[in-house]
Amino acid sequence: MPEQPELTIQGWGPGGSRGATGTGPEGVPEGRLEPDRDPDPATALPKAARRHLEKELGWEPRPTPPVAVGEIRLAPSRLPAEAHDALVALLGEEHVRTDREARLRRAGGKSYLDLLRRREGDASDAPDAVVLPGSTEETVALLALCAEHGVVVVPFGGGTSVVGGLSGMDPDDRPSLSVDVSRMASVTSVDVASSLVTVGPGMRGPAFEEVLGARGLTLGHLPQSWEYATLGGYAATRSAGQSSTGVGRFDELVAGLTLATPAGVLELGHPPASASGPDLLGLALGSEGALGVITELRLRVRPAPQTRVYEGWSFRTWADGLAGLQRLARHDLLPDVVRLSDPEETRTNLLNAGGTGARLLRGALRARRRADGCLLVVGWEGLPHVVRARRRAAVPVLREHGAGRVGHRVGESWREHRFTAPHLRDRLMDAGLLVETLETAATWTALPAVYDAVRTALRTSLGRPGRQPLLMTHVSHGYATGASLYVTVLADRDDDLPLQQWLGAKRAATEALLAAGGTLTHHHAVGADHRPWLAREVGLLGVEVLRAVKQRLDPQGICNPGVLLPD
Amino acid sequence: MPEQPELTIQGWGPGGSRGATGTGPEGVPEGRLEPDRDPDPATALPKAARRHLEKELGWEPRPTPPVAVGEIRLAPSRLPAEAHDALVALLGEEHVRTDREARLRRAGGKSYLDLLRRREGDASDAPDAVVLPGSTEETVALLALCAEHGVVVVPFGGGTSVVGGLSGMDPDDRPSLSVDVSRMASVTSVDVASSLVTVGPGMRGPAFEEVLGARGLTLGHLPQSWEYATLGGYAATRSAGQSSTGVGRFDELVAGLTLATPAGVLELGHPPASASGPDLLGLALGSEGALGVITELRLRVRPAPQTRVYEGWSFRTWADGLAGLQRLARHDLLPDVVRLSDPEETRTNLLNAGGTGARLLRGALRARRRADGCLLVVGWEGLPHVVRARRRAAVPVLREHGAGRVGHRVGESWREHRFTAPHLRDRLMDAGLLVETLETAATWTALPAVYDAVRTALRTSLGRPGRQPLLMTHVSHGYATGASLYVTVLADRDDDLPLQQWLGAKRAATEALLAAGGTLTHHHAVGADHRPWLAREVGLLGVEVLRAVKQRLDPQGICNPGVLLPD
Repeated sequence: MPEQPELTIQGWGPGGSRGATGTGPEGVPEGRLEPDRDPDPATALPKAARRHLEKELGWEPRPTPPVAVGEIRLAPSRLPAEAHDALVALLGEEHVRTDREARLRRAGGKSYLDLLRRREGDASDAPDAVVLPGSTEETVALLALCAEHGVVVVPFGGGTSVVGGLSGMDPDDRPSLSVDVSRMASVTSVDVASSLVTVGPGMRGPAFEEVLGARGLTLGHLPQSWEYATLGGYAATRSAGQSSTGVGRFDELVAGLTLATPAGVLELGHPPASASGPDLLGLALGSEGALGVITELRLRVRPAPQTRVYEGWSFRTWADGLAGLQRLARHDLLPDVVRLSDPEETRTNLLNAGGTGARLLRGALRARRRADGCLLVVGWEGLPHVVRARRRAAVPVLREHGAGRVGHRVGESWREHRFTAPHLRDRLMDAGLLVETLETAATWTALPAVYDAVRTALRTSLGRPGRQPLLMTHVSHGYATGASLYVTVLADRDDDLPLQQWLGAKRAATEALLAAGGTLTHHHAVGADHRPWLAREVGLLGVEVLRAVKQRLDPQGICNPGVLLPD
Repeated sequence: MPEQPELTIQGWGPGGSRGATGTGPEGVPEGRLEPDRDPDPATALPKAARRHLEKELGWEPRPTPPVAVGEIRLAPSRLPAEAHDALVALLGEEHVRTDREARLRRAGGKSYLDLLRRREGDASDAPDAVVLPGSTEETVALLALCAEHGVVVVPFGGGTSVVGGLSGMDPDDRPSLSVDVSRMASVTSVDVASSLVTVGPGMRGPAFEEVLGARGLTLGHLPQSWEYATLGGYAATRSAGQSSTGVGRFDELVAGLTLATPAGVLELGHPPASASGPDLLGLALGSEGALGVITELRLRVRPAPQTRVYEGWSFRTWADGLAGLQRLARHDLLPDVVRLSDPEETRTNLLNAGGTGARLLRGALRARRRADGCLLVVGWEGLPHVVRARRRAAVPVLREHGAGRVGHRVGESWREHRFTAPHLRDRLMDAGLLVETLETAATWTALPAVYDAVRTALRTSLGRPGRQPLLMTHVSHGYATGASLYVTVLADRDDDLPLQQWLGAKRAATEALLAAGGTLTHHHAVGADHRPWLAREVGLLGVEVLRAVKQRLDPQGICNPGVLLPD
């Protein structure tokens, strides 16, 4: 049995930078403005991994460091003095900030485009000021005030958007305010019998799980941005986490919420269920700040699992793997965590993994002629006898589709390292790489075509003589009707036109996946980056319905105007 | 072991009248206009049941028959000749009907108020004409045509609304059209791998299950109106069925739908899941015809269960029963079917049940000092080993809360008779009884208070010297966060002011359940009857959001104007 193979390359996606983490003035983690990482690209990756990437990508490691923080260009704040004074009167001096640091910290999110801009010293998406309301009442009042003064409002949670959720351009170029929700971050009620907890939108996953854990409860929502992202952000973007196959997507965990809008307050959601007309809670979920600011959440929690079983399996082919998961899904037998890596991701992970464990695993897979196969990480959590029964029911299905068990350590190793991977990203970018992820979902029937289409589009767009991208894909969430696909893209960066290089690839991939029947996004949301395609998913009339809702709640169009809705 | 105890009184609710069923011109069941039932009230119930009710209610059985069909007052059709001709040109002569029978068949639904009105010969809620479009395209065209001619449109599925969904009053008193969807009733695609089936809104449950059964599939949505209600109606009203605890509410089974509106067509829903902004599918679900007509559905199906285990349990008290279900719910251990009857419903069911089986069950419960207890019917369905494991995990929890097993036959008997109960209703009304149901849902924490509040309100409103209502309540659906309550009300009818008698009781019950934290409705929808209270659930601003959506999709306000939205 191999021990602790390092599978940490699996999720090279967006997220925070652990190497650059401090604690902000509100006691929450914030990225340090000045990264303190080793500038030598040679140390960013193990030697074998670097060689593998050099060969695969045609990449030559080279130092391409970001500009120093002091050189980031930040225009003076345009917040009108009148608005500033009114905000100070409402929130207090210490909760209205126009200093350089406060503004830079809320500039943009964590998409590759965001990072590229910031690395080049461009902070044009920074807000003109930052406010920190402490309650729903203060938030509603500040929205009314901003509507009156023509100031744009962008809610700020963890700053982890990877679709430009914080980088929308206001067509009218008005002054903008970042509404940081970190002061609204406490648990205000715990109803154990009803599995309901009321909490502020600024609370982060780790702190929330700590409060819950003391009562034997858990939320169980674990996206890769877990260390930084806020509960309000999850709701605003319809987040999904690594255990969402089991516990449900975040929107399924929201039993109610409060949305502060320029037109007033909406209190939505009536657990356990209601047939009182159309679902307005579902309009607030995924609203991405474009309808207002989420100021409170009522979340469905559950007893902390008594048992966890994580393990690895190996399928001979991608098709076998998809067929096996589909069979499990049809019969409601999917484990709580399901991650099926395609051959390219499996091979890269195994090649780049360090330690004796990884060597042993590689050897074992080669011996069983599965070196070109697909690794599956599965996890069951809950009551011991139920976990046992569910696993017992699932195993024969996996075996029927040719899967072989590769042991607990693979699963446990994935679990242990699942939040560390994104921290590698900045260092890869320092060394001249394009690193980004994209995701979609499709029915089981459409999934293979979507997979092929996205890969072909990315290869065509990013390939050049002697260079081609490395595309690592996995199924990250399973449903009875289909599954999501998560693609990590690595390529040699075009140092002259890096933004255009990715914009072209992203456009090609998006067109391809939509044409093949994929959803525009499975859990990253729309933001600024996906909005040109929103009508492809909901239709022009669907967009018009959203506009009508926005017009009613935000007639001046001050709420995050550059995201969600197309121009 | 008792055999086949008759527990059929349990669901004396709304629904069709089996005794009065024929097949309509479109090959679907339609209530016969002239009921062919025995007019003698003495035969409506077994003697023991009649005596029990006489004693409980202070009711004196008396013949109070409906007026003959020929005497129902129906005003001449007001459909403008121009609109009629345009509709005929669009749909063909045979699909535009203004005859008395066609109009009477689509007059109102199955609420107690609907039935009272019809029994008194009042068909003022009958449409001026009935149209039967055959496609989305025809439906959109007819909506545009009606908008142009100022004709109101009321979608018609099974005619089983129990909240006045077909009886809304247009404030402008325009001519109205019933849009019968029965011609759009076929399965157009089956994607077994993705568990998705595309079907017309006019298909009924039995026919749909037959199509699915031939492929080893099931939908599993079984409301009491199953024989009559249509799939489109389920979606338009956020229906829940008897197995919804297991398979999910109907809104959870809709992966996509087509909504034809006066402003055009919305194609909504992207299985398996999407993070593309607010959920527009959830706006169409529960829209009750007020935003347009649902013309196609994409439903999530599942493999037909290989095993079914139904059984009865008995709790000593209502509090014990609720506590036991809550514990199961917290740990995701609820069976697929959960029905917990309160002491009044349990006692009445046992007293009124016929056969040796029922006598034996009564004796057994008395011997165990559980005659005043609460009967629980539970059902598990699925793969044999999973059903076994789930049941094994649940049984100790039931026992910890003092439940005793009363055997399979109770459960099987409930399953067998679950659709027959409503058919008794017309006969009870013939004999001078008020018979109606109402329902709500609440968190586990609020549930006991909601239960008490509703019962007190109904007793106070309906009680008179020597007379009091019989209130039979059960938990019909369980969730992690709470459960629904379903109340059947029997009372001696006030022959002089029967409408006012019920309106007063309903108003008192609704105010009481809302004040105690219940939802306005759990699965009956809003219709005309609940709309005065909609703002209590979604707020005035929530109502305004719905109005904004309606204004965008239906600017002339022709879509079922008397339902859902308050004046």
